[in-house]
Amino acid sequence: MISTLQIPSNIQEDINLVENLMLNQAENYHQDLKSALKVLLSSGGKRIRPMIILLIGDMLRGEKTKLLNLATAIELLHTATLVHDDLIDGALLRRGIPTLNSKWSPAATVLTGDFLFSCSAVLAAKTNNLEVIELFSRTLTVIVNGEINQLFTSRCNTSREDYELRIYAKTASLFETSAKSAAILSNANAKQIESLRKFGYSLGMAFQIIDDVLDYVGDESKVGKPLGGDLRQGLVTLPVLYYIQDHLDNPSIIRLLDGKCITEDEEITLLVKEIAVSDAIGKSLNDAHEMVLQAQSCLESFPESEEKQTLLALTEYIIERNK
Amino acid sequence: MISTLQIPSNIQEDINLVENLMLNQAENYHQDLKSALKVLLSSGGKRIRPMIILLIGDMLRGEKTKLLNLATAIELLHTATLVHDDLIDGALLRRGIPTLNSKWSPAATVLTGDFLFSCSAVLAAKTNNLEVIELFSRTLTVIVNGEINQLFTSRCNTSREDYELRIYAKTASLFETSAKSAAILSNANAKQIESLRKFGYSLGMAFQIIDDVLDYVGDESKVGKPLGGDLRQGLVTLPVLYYIQDHLDNPSIIRLLDGKCITEDEEITLLVKEIAVSDAIGKSLNDAHEMVLQAQSCLESFPESEEKQTLLALTEYIIERNK
Repeated sequence: MISTLQIPSNIQEDINLVENLMLNQAENYHQDLKSALKVLLSSGGKRIRPMIILLIGDMLRGEKTKLLNLATAIELLHTATLVHDDLIDGALLRRGIPTLNSKWSPAATVLTGDFLFSCSAVLAAKTNNLEVIELFSRTLTVIVNGEINQLFTSRCNTSREDYELRIYAKTASLFETSAKSAAILSNANAKQIESLRKFGYSLGMAFQIIDDVLDYVGDESKVGKPLGGDLRQGLVTLPVLYYIQDHLDNPSIIRLLDGKCITEDEEITLLVKEIAVSDAIGKSLNDAHEMVLQAQSCLESFPESEEKQTLLALTEYIIERNK
Repeated sequence: MISTLQIPSNIQEDINLVENLMLNQAENYHQDLKSALKVLLSSGGKRIRPMIILLIGDMLRGEKTKLLNLATAIELLHTATLVHDDLIDGALLRRGIPTLNSKWSPAATVLTGDFLFSCSAVLAAKTNNLEVIELFSRTLTVIVNGEINQLFTSRCNTSREDYELRIYAKTASLFETSAKSAAILSNANAKQIESLRKFGYSLGMAFQIIDDVLDYVGDESKVGKPLGGDLRQGLVTLPVLYYIQDHLDNPSIIRLLDGKCITEDEEITLLVKEIAVSDAIGKSLNDAHEMVLQAQSCLESFPESEEKQTLLALTEYIIERNK
């Protein structure tokens, strides 16, 4: 739930329904799955993807049941990828709360993720829309392939193209699919579907850039994990890319451009601090702002409505959440 | 491929198409996924599930493209569960060939499994049949929940009910879904669909019982892993259940019935040898044979055809493969 964003009460009610539907997935299955789902839900995701879906659905007067199934399917898919991600990264904290991975065996974590994938697929099927179901499955392929790229070939990669592909796979693809699927399920016309697809894409790109900025300048207690984690994992994000441009004589940067990952803890800590106070942050935020303006422009052709206003407010919230 | 079963050449050609389709999934994605898929395919599964689908489809004159997509989706789903299984069990060999898990990091193994899940979902969507897509997703839920049960609550469980639920989740559910989905996609009527669902169910139960027997009396070089692995993992299978009935005074059995897992390696090795030469094997095989007869009876109402004969031969092969 977003505290600084005014969410219309009917949308908040629908978000609550989505959370209940998520929790209910474990009904009739192993009891530990219910505990796991409770832990995952209580760790308080912002439910931005369901919110996008529900707002678009309401704006276009789509059928509620299908939209709730889609929103739950998308959030479960997102949750499943986080569960496997935390295992892969060996992360012990997410949003400041211990991960499943830190409490459960790898086996239990793998299977909980698989269970969530399977539930998300069942719910996607319940939209009864073949185009949405195929889009949904393909998006999972894109996300997983992105993680494989990140694992095998993106370490210490200093190309902007690689960065953009990475954040598309990681975040923007699912935002894009959320918005596009909500439009399809609401029987939008082709032009509207394309506008909303692009809205989701742009918002997702902005969201991930902000996430990557917060890894340098965020409030550790709010981000919920130690700062500089990306660089420690060898992931070069937008703030680093901008920092590189102005610090070509920095010895750490010279080695990074030479394809060598920075592994010394002290060197990383110093670089993280330098990046945090450099121009790279403002430049990155500027790019995120550009993407938000692009997202906003995608809504121009839709008539005024409370839902449209909330979608616009959501785009602002995504930019503002770093403050 | 089954060496002792006469497979009609057109079905063999279709199986080859399925294998190519599986391999092609990695096209356009990370190159290591293609290598992983090659390794997984070369480890030589018997492709029994695709064979069931293709034979039923041919018998009922179903549309080939949809059936090929279904067969590939099911085999990819099966392969994905094996990849995650091997990680969970820490298995280093499957069918005598090193597992992905033994060569790759856990992270790469988790993601390869996830990738295969996502590809299987895309192919299932391509059947364009909502009932099949939902059945497919639900089956994944059943399989994963079964694995979670096995991990958390089935260790050293000596109840026959638990055993049957376990082998249904592990194997029979996917056989059942294969046969039922092939029937649905071939526009079979409700009675035919139910007969073929039961055919798949019975064959799957028989298949897993035989697998469990082979874990005691198989040829290690053919089974591809050391004998007695189930008991070493604390899994009580049908041969143990029958052995228990006639050896209530055996100290190992007394402790097992008291809920205590056998952990001493020497004790397990001795018990495995004793079970292998006991009546328990014949009794288990008899149960598998019963399930095969039940599967065969499900085909009675279908007119004679080469495909029906091959399906019947397949049921015999499943029983015979222990010899």
